[in-house]
Amino acid sequence: MAYASPPANESGADKPREECGVFGIHGHADAAALIALGLHALQHRGQEAAGIVTFEDGRFFSHRGPGNIADNFGDESVIRGLQGNIGIGHNRYSTTGETLARNIQPLFADLASGGFAIAHNGNLTNALTIRRKLVADGCLFQSTTDTEVLIHLIATSRAESLVERMVAALGQVEGAYSLAALHNDTLIGVRDPHGIRPLVLGRLENSHVLASETCALDIIGASYVRDIAPGEMILIDSDGVRTAHPFTPQPHRFCVFEYIYFARPDSTIEGRNVYESRKRIGIELARETHIPADIVVPVPDSGVPAALGYAEQSGIPYELGIIRNHYVGRTFIEPTERIRHLGVKLKHNANNEVIRDKRVVLVDDSIVRGTTSTKIVEMVRAAGARSVHMRIASPPTANSCFYGVDTPDRSELFAAQNTVEEMARIIGVDSLAFLSIDGLYRAMGETGRDPDSPGYCDACFTGDYPVRLTDLSGRKADGQLSFMTRLA
Amino acid sequence: MAYASPPANESGADKPREECGVFGIHGHADAAALIALGLHALQHRGQEAAGIVTFEDGRFFSHRGPGNIADNFGDESVIRGLQGNIGIGHNRYSTTGETLARNIQPLFADLASGGFAIAHNGNLTNALTIRRKLVADGCLFQSTTDTEVLIHLIATSRAESLVERMVAALGQVEGAYSLAALHNDTLIGVRDPHGIRPLVLGRLENSHVLASETCALDIIGASYVRDIAPGEMILIDSDGVRTAHPFTPQPHRFCVFEYIYFARPDSTIEGRNVYESRKRIGIELARETHIPADIVVPVPDSGVPAALGYAEQSGIPYELGIIRNHYVGRTFIEPTERIRHLGVKLKHNANNEVIRDKRVVLVDDSIVRGTTSTKIVEMVRAAGARSVHMRIASPPTANSCFYGVDTPDRSELFAAQNTVEEMARIIGVDSLAFLSIDGLYRAMGETGRDPDSPGYCDACFTGDYPVRLTDLSGRKADGQLSFMTRLA
Amino acid sequence: MAYASPPANESGADKPREECGVFGIHGHADAAALIALGLHALQHRGQEAAGIVTFEDGRFFSHRGPGNIADNFGDESVIRGLQGNIGIGHNRYSTTGETLARNIQPLFADLASGGFAIAHNGNLTNALTIRRKLVADGCLFQSTTDTEVLIHLIATSRAESLVERMVAALGQVEGAYSLAALHNDTLIGVRDPHGIRPLVLGRLENSHVLASETCALDIIGASYVRDIAPGEMILIDSDGVRTAHPFTPQPHRFCVFEYIYFARPDSTIEGRNVYESRKRIGIELARETHIPADIVVPVPDSGVPAALGYAEQSGIPYELGIIRNHYVGRTFIEPTERIRHLGVKLKHNANNEVIRDKRVVLVDDSIVRGTTSTKIVEMVRAAGARSVHMRIASPPTANSCFYGVDTPDRSELFAAQNTVEEMARIIGVDSLAFLSIDGLYRAMGETGRDPDSPGYCDACFTGDYPVRLTDLSGRKADGQLSFMTRLA
Amino acid sequence: MAYASPPANESGADKPREECGVFGIHGHADAAALIALGLHALQHRGQEAAGIVTFEDGRFFSHRGPGNIADNFGDESVIRGLQGNIGIGHNRYSTTGETLARNIQPLFADLASGGFAIAHNGNLTNALTIRRKLVADGCLFQSTTDTEVLIHLIATSRAESLVERMVAALGQVEGAYSLAALHNDTLIGVRDPHGIRPLVLGRLENSHVLASETCALDIIGASYVRDIAPGEMILIDSDGVRTAHPFTPQPHRFCVFEYIYFARPDSTIEGRNVYESRKRIGIELARETHIPADIVVPVPDSGVPAALGYAEQSGIPYELGIIRNHYVGRTFIEPTERIRHLGVKLKHNANNEVIRDKRVVLVDDSIVRGTTSTKIVEMVRAAGARSVHMRIASPPTANSCFYGVDTPDRSELFAAQNTVEEMARIIGVDSLAFLSIDGLYRAMGETGRDPDSPGYCDACFTGDYPVRLTDLSGRKADGQLSFMTRLA
Repeated sequence: MAYASPPANESGADKPREECGVFGIHGHADAAALIALGLHALQHRGQEAAGIVTFEDGRFFSHRGPGNIADNFGDESVIRGLQGNIGIGHNRYSTTGETLARNIQPLFADLASGGFAIAHNGNLTNALTIRRKLVADGCLFQSTTDTEVLIHLIATSRAESLVERMVAALGQVEGAYSLAALHNDTLIGVRDPHGIRPLVLGRLENSHVLASETCALDIIGASYVRDIAPGEMILIDSDGVRTAHPFTPQPHRFCVFEYIYFARPDSTIEGRNVYESRKRIGIELARETHIPADIVVPVPDSGVPAALGYAEQSGIPYELGIIRNHYVGRTFIEPTERIRHLGVKLKHNANNEVIRDKRVVLVDDSIVRGTTSTKIVEMVRAAGARSVHMRIASPPTANSCFYGVDTPDRSELFAAQNTVEEMARIIGVDSLAFLSIDGLYRAMGETGRDPDSPGYCDACFTGDYPVRLTDLSGRKADGQLSFMTRLA
Repeated sequence: MAYASPPANESGADKPREECGVFGIHGHADAAALIALGLHALQHRGQEAAGIVTFEDGRFFSHRGPGNIADNFGDESVIRGLQGNIGIGHNRYSTTGETLARNIQPLFADLASGGFAIAHNGNLTNALTIRRKLVADGCLFQSTTDTEVLIHLIATSRAESLVERMVAALGQVEGAYSLAALHNDTLIGVRDPHGIRPLVLGRLENSHVLASETCALDIIGASYVRDIAPGEMILIDSDGVRTAHPFTPQPHRFCVFEYIYFARPDSTIEGRNVYESRKRIGIELARETHIPADIVVPVPDSGVPAALGYAEQSGIPYELGIIRNHYVGRTFIEPTERIRHLGVKLKHNANNEVIRDKRVVLVDDSIVRGTTSTKIVEMVRAAGARSVHMRIASPPTANSCFYGVDTPDRSELFAAQNTVEEMARIIGVDSLAFLSIDGLYRAMGETGRDPDSPGYCDACFTGDYPVRLTDLSGRKADGQLSFMTRLA
Repeated sequence: MAYASPPANESGADKPREECGVFGIHGHADAAALIALGLHALQHRGQEAAGIVTFEDGRFFSHRGPGNIADNFGDESVIRGLQGNIGIGHNRYSTTGETLARNIQPLFADLASGGFAIAHNGNLTNALTIRRKLVADGCLFQSTTDTEVLIHLIATSRAESLVERMVAALGQVEGAYSLAALHNDTLIGVRDPHGIRPLVLGRLENSHVLASETCALDIIGASYVRDIAPGEMILIDSDGVRTAHPFTPQPHRFCVFEYIYFARPDSTIEGRNVYESRKRIGIELARETHIPADIVVPVPDSGVPAALGYAEQSGIPYELGIIRNHYVGRTFIEPTERIRHLGVKLKHNANNEVIRDKRVVLVDDSIVRGTTSTKIVEMVRAAGARSVHMRIASPPTANSCFYGVDTPDRSELFAAQNTVEEMARIIGVDSLAFLSIDGLYRAMGETGRDPDSPGYCDACFTGDYPVRLTDLSGRKADGQLSFMTRLA
Repeated sequence: MAYASPPANESGADKPREECGVFGIHGHADAAALIALGLHALQHRGQEAAGIVTFEDGRFFSHRGPGNIADNFGDESVIRGLQGNIGIGHNRYSTTGETLARNIQPLFADLASGGFAIAHNGNLTNALTIRRKLVADGCLFQSTTDTEVLIHLIATSRAESLVERMVAALGQVEGAYSLAALHNDTLIGVRDPHGIRPLVLGRLENSHVLASETCALDIIGASYVRDIAPGEMILIDSDGVRTAHPFTPQPHRFCVFEYIYFARPDSTIEGRNVYESRKRIGIELARETHIPADIVVPVPDSGVPAALGYAEQSGIPYELGIIRNHYVGRTFIEPTERIRHLGVKLKHNANNEVIRDKRVVLVDDSIVRGTTSTKIVEMVRAAGARSVHMRIASPPTANSCFYGVDTPDRSELFAAQNTVEEMARIIGVDSLAFLSIDGLYRAMGETGRDPDSPGYCDACFTGDYPVRLTDLSGRKADGQLSFMTRLA
């Protein structure tokens, strides 16, 4: 949702970060409140900014701001101000300052045919290339997001209806997109032809709902209808639901990392429950990497389901040997050098009594930079573990994502720069093992990965990118990013 | 600076309101601080929002927000963040909410040739007509200001240089504009061909300054160089100052109300000191409307200089019979009905001891709706005045302004709806008299008003509008304002 | 820490709430930062307000505010402002408004012998009785906390040294108290003679630490030295650590609910690890209340360790059938009646795929009002459970706590008003069972509860209150609370 | 209102600062709104903090905060929250931080007989001496104000009724005090026996009003009844107004500086209108210090009335040669050294066209440190004045005030450290003259100052202090201030 060319993960958090959740509803008197609830259930997909746009009687209502849903929509007067039976909302990650305010979605534009709002999960890989051309033609951009390219393409399209303009615009962009959009009293959902990001359709009484994940249907008591198909455009208005498939069909390549880490465990995507998928991954992991040990300890919370699967398959007892402090806020005191060496543990603490003198299998979902793993292992050793064996519930993450996930540049990816043996030595474990790529596909119900038709986007593991990276290839040549940072 | 077609003065303040002050500087290491100081001196021209944009090394820095200068730029870190030796700033009136944020100037755009920022004092009278056409062509507007029309005309112009594009754009707009703009390291000043709003050039050491009034030069110790001429465009960069006169010459029609009320008394505009002009107006007023009385009392602060002139000419002693409370903030408790009838006096209080048993000549600069005058007279009578004679230091304000002053619609203008006798009866005075239009011109050093070449814009008094009102004539036909209020 | 007489739990949260965490440190250059970190680890003991007081060179430094630790101490400049090598801190629950500000601890007083700050975990049961007498003598109270009574007793004591005055004051109060106090450069820790609340001593390099739980030592890398003994007063200054036992010895009655729910699982209290105690409770629970089922599902997060023990003992698989949303903030939209009936699930969501068609054993730590249990069971049933058997890892909570835990009045306690059969019917389960009181003591390593010397405070289960409830007995007679609410 | 012993005027503002305004009302349904309005009219007496306490049905309601009245009471919900028909309010100066919050008045205490709130204008000169004794007896102070001493004296008094306790307490304090207090449903007003600070009684319909000045009666339409007499205590409850004179009578010594500078020009104090008194002072000044000149220019706004009197008496024309910017906020950018030398004029600007080539008589009310005068003269000279003659409408301010006015220490008082000739040289004028002390008394209607019975407190001019300075004499001996700054 931000220009992907230079992958940036400046916070230093050692996890890939999903870059958005979207939600839309048509036909409910409490539209704004339900959107806020839906976004709350999707909070794990983006916590740094949020927005809602609603529509009623020719007017649009908008509230957007930095912070999470409760920060922005906890005040009843805000919800009341968002009038209407129809609206869309968005969660995102972002940076700070004025830049932030301009980039918070849903983006909104006054088109000649009426107002248009859009919320985007994914990332366009040729947005910079298109933007450069549009600016030369006199288009004025108000944000630095890739998403705004779509709006200008729609605005300047010569096609007649909004839908035709939108199809024409989407026909020019490359990359991943699951969209919820609003044009007057029509709610629009679109998923890119590869279906890289999720999008589902639900129903609540007489109203229709679009959401990134099924957990956002559950929170408001809506029933799940079906996943929006890759390449499908869905239009919802007072006449009901219409569907179209206006794009050239492409092989389906849903992001497998949604199953490994991003999606909420209680969501079900394309027929597969996320929690159960993770347990099966843990089972495969135990099959491939078994080692004698006394306890299986998850790195909470993301390693929990895989650790349960590992323990079940291996017969080694599952223990909560690491406790997570859930009160960690967005900011906290930056320790001075003097106290940093004390090994301050803001987020995790080892439970010494559980770990002391044990051979520990530590289970985590993935390793990005390796920094967190190093700290965790150090902590577990300090708690008296006899040996530490780390098991990772995915193959090594050796490639950056350009389809809507905030991963570091390859040069900072632990698995891109080190062999497994080097990684084991750096993070200080007695043994380290990753799930194989075929093991991952087996956990997903396949017999292994078919290189000709893998069925999932697994580029972060394999480097096999399903959509070309237009902006990236031109990036070094002309430094095209400079103009976007003009207004600091 | 906002679409003028529907004159709106929703605050109910019973004074016309100037709609902006602009300031620019080129070549000073403390550019941002000096702009903030200059805008502080221009605070009377707009107190509801403020912004500064600076430029350094290919990057623009911006800070804009609701409130006055001290609210927005009182924090040293804000000033420090506005890097560079060049920048522009703007004070404005505005409404509330998100709309406000989008409308606060300077507006900024990323053009293909670089960043462009603009600050506008005045109002374009065909902005809606142009905007409608631009939106149909696919232009996306991010504000509801008339000023943004200029930016899109510049962005979509086919002319080669920024200056040529800017001239082409200005050639299409009608109305009043004094502009300070920034294109990379060039500072640009423009005044419309009629010269309706003021703009002066100053010098501080080796740097050049643009400002709405000379008081903004004084505050930073800059020397006055000259007024920018009507129809002049001035370009300031590291090569120095260049000037051009690219527009068809027009009769000069500087706003005479700047002398009567808007400008600060210590400013000098086109060679005439404002305070002295007001005193001369008071002298003319006394000549035309003399009546025997005991004291001359100004309605503070705006009536003070004319009252001094009136007292000097009439020989009647000048007394501070009304005290103004300068702590009045932007908001205050809305009195309940129960206490409103007590005649609460937040802003003015009569000094009973001075007024009791006196025949009072009350001097004010103008009457807009008549509501404040009514309250003031009631207060002076309650203080025991024997008789109250109101003298107004301008002709009756019987027409709305469309050139950058926020006046009510004609239907709410006191003088448009009532004869002088009716006005006197409504506000409750023993006598009421206005300065004649010829008296006003005499005070300005003329022998009277020449209808063929009046020399000033005096449309609010005479209805003689120097620039045509394109948007206004089409307004009722198609309600073109609706689309602008879409995003509430 | 607030007057306990009228137990109040107005938030409606259906868990008892611990009312404070305390922390103190002596002799470390980063005292304030370490206190903030310690309080962060104790955040579960109080999240509605926090404060730190430090001392240096005759001056005290204080920062207190509503909200959690990161809200109040996330800004580095706040930490820097809290100068000195010695200080104390406090987490608490509280209500809103000005009242709140006055009540946030540490409380501070200027005594003739110097400044005195105090942080209190627990509750005094005769504070109102003493307060009434002190007010009659002319003492002015600035807060409505029970803790302030201690300060006035110290201030008006005729004993010579501060320590003697403090002992004299504590000799007059009844109830539960674990205190961290500061008098100039002396750090003081005290635990009431029954030892109802926890308090431990730790060591970090050359500095000494006091904390409510060991997890607050772990976060800063401090080592555990020992638990402060019931009735012990410990004095820490530049001469080292001195200890005293100035009170009449009493039977030890540590709060058993700390093991069941309050304390963090990674803490170890009086030699017993909390997580392992909870697992043993789960094992006892399975022994006593076994029933054939397909899965054991914890109510997260508090039911997790007992559910693991239950699953281990019963051989029934442990599954995460309920997912908790950790982004729940302190406030959120109050759903309208219209959407409340949709069964909005802000905090928990059932994982339908896991639960469908299963016989479910639901494990929770306790039931207070029963409202949450009812919603959880309804949600689990809606997810398709074949049957639902609730197992509670403690005896029925049938009595209010007056020793520092915020529980509802007896009239609102589910177990005080209903038989087990009635409770099962109301919350809608197929079966409901609680751990027996003897089972609880077995899990704590005893052979059962010895009524003559139970060893723990278990008044919430048994009604056997170890300290008399002076204020409570007089409460109805004279409504003595009224004067405290005078300043709304 | 703060401990006066070390006179402190840290802001560097070059005017003495009044330290408070008080207001009270009994028997009006809009009590809180009317108090807010009254305090707004008294805003000139204190702008850094404000508070209101009201009473209804046994409960007190309070809102206090830093900033001016509109900042704190502009929100209607705040006013609505202040329930009741009776209340008091206070404006004050203060410093920053937590200290501020604790010191904002009205102070409130829970006495055995009910709640008690107090607002104080003036300063007690033996407060530290008494405080030291009270602390030794075990009293806990929550603020660092002198006023709190009164509350403890009342609380610990053995007298029976609140009124008797209050009289006993006031009998022990020395200094200046005009008080508005609230004890349950009784409104109490007291003025010290010398009557140093003002206090008036007004009436609004059926309710009674206490206020520091009559302008606070005017704003709400209340009528003036009379001044509270020196040494008078007035009690207002539902039975009406009672009065008492419980203190030993003393010579009346009303602060003459209230007439010179503090009070609002539209107020009338003890029968003398402030504006007219200032004009008469200007007339005396012209008589005593006449010099040939072209124009009389006031330093706005405080010099305006005296300049009008001077012009009237001397026949030299009055001109607004200096313009004041009323938008100056409480904080603003701290100019860098680089731009400070530009002579930035945030507050005043010379009107060059008025001043150029003129012999100027500059009239100001007083000189404190001399810094502002120096800048003003420099500015007037830069504007082209031929000569500058400064005339001061009071005698030289050579002594600090200890009775409620914030003046610098003697070592910083310009007139205490320099002869008139030296002062003239330092501020750079051609001539400088002050009003004589006898001239001041003549302006007040006397024939001159009677040293045996001057009738006014004029200590700042004469050093003749009517009330002894107990704290001051002991100050150096034991540094008794230290304990008050303990909690930074």
